[in-house]
Amino acid sequence: MNILLVYAHPEPRSLNGSLKNFAVKRLEEAGHEVQVSDLYAMQWKATLDADDNTNRQADARFDPALDSKIALENGWQSKDIELEQEKLMWADALILQFPMWWFSMPAILKGWVERVYAYGLAYGVGEHSDTHWGDRYGEGKLKGKRAMLIVTTGGWESHYSPRGINGPIDDILFPIQHGILYYPGFDVLPPYLVYRTGRVDEARFAQVCGELGQRLDHLWQTAPIPFRPQNAGAYKIPECTLRDDIAPENSGLSIHVE
Amino acid sequence: MNILLVYAHPEPRSLNGSLKNFAVKRLEEAGHEVQVSDLYAMQWKATLDADDNTNRQADARFDPALDSKIALENGWQSKDIELEQEKLMWADALILQFPMWWFSMPAILKGWVERVYAYGLAYGVGEHSDTHWGDRYGEGKLKGKRAMLIVTTGGWESHYSPRGINGPIDDILFPIQHGILYYPGFDVLPPYLVYRTGRVDEARFAQVCGELGQRLDHLWQTAPIPFRPQNAGAYKIPECTLRDDIAPENSGLSIHVE
Repeated sequence: MNILLVYAHPEPRSLNGSLKNFAVKRLEEAGHEVQVSDLYAMQWKATLDADDNTNRQADARFDPALDSKIALENGWQSKDIELEQEKLMWADALILQFPMWWFSMPAILKGWVERVYAYGLAYGVGEHSDTHWGDRYGEGKLKGKRAMLIVTTGGWESHYSPRGINGPIDDILFPIQHGILYYPGFDVLPPYLVYRTGRVDEARFAQVCGELGQRLDHLWQTAPIPFRPQNAGAYKIPECTLRDDIAPENSGLSIHVE
Repeated sequence: MNILLVYAHPEPRSLNGSLKNFAVKRLEEAGHEVQVSDLYAMQWKATLDADDNTNRQADARFDPALDSKIALENGWQSKDIELEQEKLMWADALILQFPMWWFSMPAILKGWVERVYAYGLAYGVGEHSDTHWGDRYGEGKLKGKRAMLIVTTGGWESHYSPRGINGPIDDILFPIQHGILYYPGFDVLPPYLVYRTGRVDEARFAQVCGELGQRLDHLWQTAPIPFRPQNAGAYKIPECTLRDDIAPENSGLSIHVE
């Protein structure tokens, strides 16, 4: 299978760098094709702006969504964006690997999402009617592909536990796993997390590689997180709220998982 | 009072641009001092990297936290970072204004947080013991200041309602409001949201300005979101999990609000 690993850490000699090298080797040894987008090494442009459409009027009002749509439709996108989109369409699975900084992905990776996720590719797809609210959340152009996060954090696992002060890790990652990955169609596998990165010695690193290796070996067998598809009956359209008879007493992020 | 408005939209002639201008005028007319960090206009460097420490050995392993600490302590930070930190310390209130892109802030603003929030300023502050786990979540160097988000989104309000498919807006903003603002000590006011930005006509814009104006007029009277302080007894230390007798049946993000 074809795997795109988008990797965002500034230091190759870091834990993240070692894990990235391990993951690539493990996947290649299993016979997969792997491409790595090493965003820091590529000096990826993090900031979405008017220059991302290479053929626009200099004085025209810049509308991020509309400009993205026009640029995609007319082949006017910046070359770096096109290359990443080609990798994305080539891939059977996408892995995003990053250190958690301030409870989300590093800016350089957020900027990869914002620029590569064009209107007409990752959003603004499909009809909007009284029964269907766009091809999103379970549908979309990336449907059929799998995605998974590999995330490191300096914090303790208990701080991200169901009653931990940082918030449960599933909730903290929801905007990424549900909002960035499930939205355009990916099947999202459970994330692989490394906590307390400051305490990863040789023994712990070996343990981490063992666990991560297993996860990578089973990339095509692991059950995705069962997020509820938007247009299959569970949600009212166009309000996009969960039907009253499903999890009737509950609210919050977890109701969107079957 | 002194107010820092950090603003992240690429187009001055946008709804966001108009709201920013309105906010600045309203605050100044009320007698406040206002500084605006217009990140796109400043061409803010979004990507945290080794260059942020101006006096490091070229071949040394780059550790984002450690380098940040050393640079802050020795006056080796990049000038653009220092200037923003000065504004931050000058401010009595911080407003972050941005369009929601992929369920979080734009990369350029995330990069402002990552680079300006130095180790020793926004994290890595205070003692770590069996009763106190750093000056964070209710303590910290930004304590005594207020913060508030102004966020626009193309999506419908119902999509962000308690049972909406995007997740409740409070939960989607939790990593920012609790993780980025409450963490270093800010009192966080309820956010001001504009939904369905594609449908903001003149009448709706007037309504939005009316609402936002009220919020800005009451910046010092509005009750903050009552996030629970970490070191005041509600959490077990060092696990940082909520005490068993508080909201005993619950988990999730909402348990961290009193």
